[in-house]
Amino acid sequence: MRSFRFLPFLAGSWLAAATPAAATAPAVTFTELAAPAAKTAPIQRIDPTFWWVGMKNPKLQLLVHGPGIASSTATLKAYEGVTLDGVQKLESPNYLVLNLTISPTAKPGKLQLEFKGSKKTTFAYELRQRTTPGDKQKVQGLTQQDFIYFLMPDRFSNGDPKNDYIAGMRAPKAARDSMYSRHGGDLKGLENHFDYLKELGATAVWMTPVVENDMPKASYHGYALTDYYNTDRRYGTLEEYKQFVDRAHAAGLKVVHDVVLNHMGSKNYLFLDQPAKDWFNQWPNFTRSNYNSQALNDPYRADLDSRLYNQGWFDTTMPDVNQRNPLVATYLIQNFLWWVEYTGLDAYRIDTYPYSDPKFLMQWGQALNDEFPNLFKFGEAWVGSTAQQAFFARNIFQPVDGFKSNLESVFDFQSTFALHDAIKGDQPNMGKLYDALQGDWMYEDATRNVTFLDNHDMSRFYSVIGEDFGKYKLGITWLLTSRGIPQLYYGTEVLMKNFSNPDGKVREDFPGGFAGDKTNYFTAAGRTGQAGEAFNYVSKLAQYRKAHPVLATGKLMQFIPQDGVYAYFRYNDQGQAVMVLLNGNKDEKTVDGARFAERTGGFTGGTEIMTGAALSDLKNFKIPGRTAWVVELKK
Amino acid sequence: MRSFRFLPFLAGSWLAAATPAAATAPAVTFTELAAPAAKTAPIQRIDPTFWWVGMKNPKLQLLVHGPGIASSTATLKAYEGVTLDGVQKLESPNYLVLNLTISPTAKPGKLQLEFKGSKKTTFAYELRQRTTPGDKQKVQGLTQQDFIYFLMPDRFSNGDPKNDYIAGMRAPKAARDSMYSRHGGDLKGLENHFDYLKELGATAVWMTPVVENDMPKASYHGYALTDYYNTDRRYGTLEEYKQFVDRAHAAGLKVVHDVVLNHMGSKNYLFLDQPAKDWFNQWPNFTRSNYNSQALNDPYRADLDSRLYNQGWFDTTMPDVNQRNPLVATYLIQNFLWWVEYTGLDAYRIDTYPYSDPKFLMQWGQALNDEFPNLFKFGEAWVGSTAQQAFFARNIFQPVDGFKSNLESVFDFQSTFALHDAIKGDQPNMGKLYDALQGDWMYEDATRNVTFLDNHDMSRFYSVIGEDFGKYKLGITWLLTSRGIPQLYYGTEVLMKNFSNPDGKVREDFPGGFAGDKTNYFTAAGRTGQAGEAFNYVSKLAQYRKAHPVLATGKLMQFIPQDGVYAYFRYNDQGQAVMVLLNGNKDEKTVDGARFAERTGGFTGGTEIMTGAALSDLKNFKIPGRTAWVVELKK
Repeated sequence: MRSFRFLPFLAGSWLAAATPAAATAPAVTFTELAAPAAKTAPIQRIDPTFWWVGMKNPKLQLLVHGPGIASSTATLKAYEGVTLDGVQKLESPNYLVLNLTISPTAKPGKLQLEFKGSKKTTFAYELRQRTTPGDKQKVQGLTQQDFIYFLMPDRFSNGDPKNDYIAGMRAPKAARDSMYSRHGGDLKGLENHFDYLKELGATAVWMTPVVENDMPKASYHGYALTDYYNTDRRYGTLEEYKQFVDRAHAAGLKVVHDVVLNHMGSKNYLFLDQPAKDWFNQWPNFTRSNYNSQALNDPYRADLDSRLYNQGWFDTTMPDVNQRNPLVATYLIQNFLWWVEYTGLDAYRIDTYPYSDPKFLMQWGQALNDEFPNLFKFGEAWVGSTAQQAFFARNIFQPVDGFKSNLESVFDFQSTFALHDAIKGDQPNMGKLYDALQGDWMYEDATRNVTFLDNHDMSRFYSVIGEDFGKYKLGITWLLTSRGIPQLYYGTEVLMKNFSNPDGKVREDFPGGFAGDKTNYFTAAGRTGQAGEAFNYVSKLAQYRKAHPVLATGKLMQFIPQDGVYAYFRYNDQGQAVMVLLNGNKDEKTVDGARFAERTGGFTGGTEIMTGAALSDLKNFKIPGRTAWVVELKK
Repeated sequence: MRSFRFLPFLAGSWLAAATPAAATAPAVTFTELAAPAAKTAPIQRIDPTFWWVGMKNPKLQLLVHGPGIASSTATLKAYEGVTLDGVQKLESPNYLVLNLTISPTAKPGKLQLEFKGSKKTTFAYELRQRTTPGDKQKVQGLTQQDFIYFLMPDRFSNGDPKNDYIAGMRAPKAARDSMYSRHGGDLKGLENHFDYLKELGATAVWMTPVVENDMPKASYHGYALTDYYNTDRRYGTLEEYKQFVDRAHAAGLKVVHDVVLNHMGSKNYLFLDQPAKDWFNQWPNFTRSNYNSQALNDPYRADLDSRLYNQGWFDTTMPDVNQRNPLVATYLIQNFLWWVEYTGLDAYRIDTYPYSDPKFLMQWGQALNDEFPNLFKFGEAWVGSTAQQAFFARNIFQPVDGFKSNLESVFDFQSTFALHDAIKGDQPNMGKLYDALQGDWMYEDATRNVTFLDNHDMSRFYSVIGEDFGKYKLGITWLLTSRGIPQLYYGTEVLMKNFSNPDGKVREDFPGGFAGDKTNYFTAAGRTGQAGEAFNYVSKLAQYRKAHPVLATGKLMQFIPQDGVYAYFRYNDQGQAVMVLLNGNKDEKTVDGARFAERTGGFTGGTEIMTGAALSDLKNFKIPGRTAWVVELKK
């Protein structure tokens, strides 16, 4: 069972830390699963479930699934602009691959596919009209001007109690008293609170995967997908998700879709009835990944270590997909083109990015870039150094073993670690924050990195910093004023806390999102005490940031921290400049502002935007202990 | 006064750590030093002091120094193949620059230079025959097969008491009871112990700089050079140094010459009588470097921070040389071509490498590469990450702000830190050692890196590891079996100890090197107790390494450490392989050797070369606690 996901990133230590469940988990063997299911209907499904005319790439590869279908001959009834170029058998008798070409002149309609075996079957395959081209609300991408709100849809708000349990799905009914069960949150619940997100200042929403996870246990997290072409109906139907994206766009919120390339859920039909053994990375016995991306580009690596990393399974219930198989690669690429064109989503967040086959990642990224140049993609690469992190984004490295990432962006784990290290102790170590950004010279453009204080796999920020509200404001200010695209984990704006170990309480329900909740943090009245103060702090700064693009997209200059005070500026060529000061010390410090002359020249003073206080002397001033200042400079 | 050199590398923390003396040190101002000295002889000197015919670069730039020389006209008496292309005046009246071209056909001899001013002077400038081309003992370079012994010549052995004090030089007489005074060690002392180095297994010797340091205080360390064209006579004359190199070569020892590009001593004639203000990096008041190389390639750097780094002074007595001045650049380049051609030395160790101007470093490196392709050069870049370290060596990065290092090698500080972190605590963290080499993907060739356990600026290794002899053997074994060119700091082979702070006792005299020493570690009889055991351990392993090139130049494969045991192999295509195992735990561990199959396949067992013990089962075996094994595999 995959409970809470920790990807320890340092060799040596992680082996001891790897989930102890591994040793006792039952091995999933292929022998018991490879037998074709007894089915009667000749065609169970064809993936992609439908397609479009007018895609830039005219090729389309259909995976036809039906009992014994491989013994049929397949033909395409004449359709102007569409040709069936070839038919391919797989190891399993229950699959056929059809390779089509759709010319630019083809019109929407239904292809008539005919399968002749012991009996004849036809299948009407739909080619639709594209909707994304020319629609500015669709596939908008992300920039530094965005502010991503990240949540687990099961844990945020239950807007439709009717979909809490779907008859026939494997998981038991929702049970809010268990951290491993479904709680009932859904798309509708989130839609109901678009106003809350807007009030907070968010411009984009990222949910943990909304695709079907029809798994018997812990299915709420969404990373064990069982159908590449459907949503999990406990969040909403496929059509409802499409509507959700439209409504989010109409509300001024972009949508980030969470993507898993490396593995699937063991109840996926492709695993239950496998097209071929080499659709998956096979091991004689269940073999877990070593979770160590370093084996990937270590010039002295053992082949065993790198295979364990890329081809070992993430968990017993998550078969590792063999992306070196070109059919698998095409299946995945088409699927992720499909979601963009179908919904108009704005960005992909790619789970466990480096665990996938490196060459496949390049191919996948290129195909998406070619078709949707505005789509923004950022990967999860939970690693231990800036260089290793930059390795998985577009960077200034020559190719390493033929790999050169074409991914726009990665999560900036290094700056998160640095922030924690900088402020969590009694004595500040602000140099860590400087260091974290200094390494940006390795990226093609690190301002695309996604920054964050915490996420669903980590201890919550407010707990990490010992529930110190001064430190909290330092963290929020850094997040919303430094370079990058900031991401906030749901509840951090209202001081939700807890440690990632051992009970998973970092994924608690958002107060007010569920019937019967005693507190309701969605309303100002419900946000009593410091939770309200925290919300207001985030909201005020995020709204200021929205209204003052210099804070989001301006150039950055940072000064080497001195005496526990870190100073940096966001500025532009139009004479706007904001000075940010983070005093990590308990005590007030005198700041030698004269050393910032290259950024404060021409300005006479400034206004601290959170308090409205005036700063009249830029050359020499005092800043109180554990305080963040965001000073709009004035001529 | 520059006492002990620490280059704190982490922003934030280093400012507090910077030598407190800085605040109170008397500022050296240019006004008081720029006045020309009252001299009578018209020509004090010409640098380079002599040159050669047949250099690949036909250009030669002479810096002529003499009171009022700038008002003279300079001419060259006809000399076949040599032309005087131009004469250049500087800001000071006491200098002239002559630009010559020496054609490939020019013969050795003396150029007659004539200077006509208020009176006429001639100067016979010598052009010599080159000796390095075709002489295989000269300019040999370094490879992984080398083993560098590093020492401070003042502290190693006094072979010639007559040169302990040189009348007219600024420092007082040698005083062995002070860590800041000269102790009397010299070239002759080292020569007397070539046999000791050979017995130890060293193949190269690196001394702290042997060039003149005619400074009143702490001149023994050698990093405040006062004459670019002379040795410090307390070590030996220039001619004796040339002989020293020849004798070292004859004894089978290569010579590494320690180079300072960034600064000079304040008693250098070029600072006492400055050619021009822009020969140095000028500040209104004494301004110390921020010692933070990160400001160099931080994309968000303040100009102030990067200028402080590159142009701030290393210490009050060490003026920072302005290498952006083309005359300065040429002066330095010629000087370092001169030492190679004059002595036939094999390698340059470059002090404070990143503190120099980046463009100058490229130019300097290129000029040396062009003239002496076999010369090996390695830089000191005491930084905090592998990426930052690789930035200063040849690497796979695209140029950053026009800088792309052309340096063959750097000191591998990261693996040193990793080794300390891996074994210094009670619990081992062997993953650190794996990580340190994993980052080698960023280098063009990290096997050229110079590895080490400690040096003259760090606490001694034996003290760092709490004087634990088991850990000591782990360290020595790692040093002599991992990738890179190993360097041993004098005395580490006989367990010399001490911490770098506060009293500089990491630079104590080698026992037996000075008259009256009660112990003599140069002889087997004198190396009583564990000192002898340590020496024998180093010597045995180094001699084995010499006799078995696979251990030095073989390919490396490392396995992700498990359970505190780090395993790696050196192997070649000729079927030779050595397995190294480092058990960092206090206790014995069982090793799953089966996972090393890709390297042990074809071998039936092995011999642990330090003990001679046989290892018969490569698939499963136990290794005792805190133990290093070097196992020669057998078919």
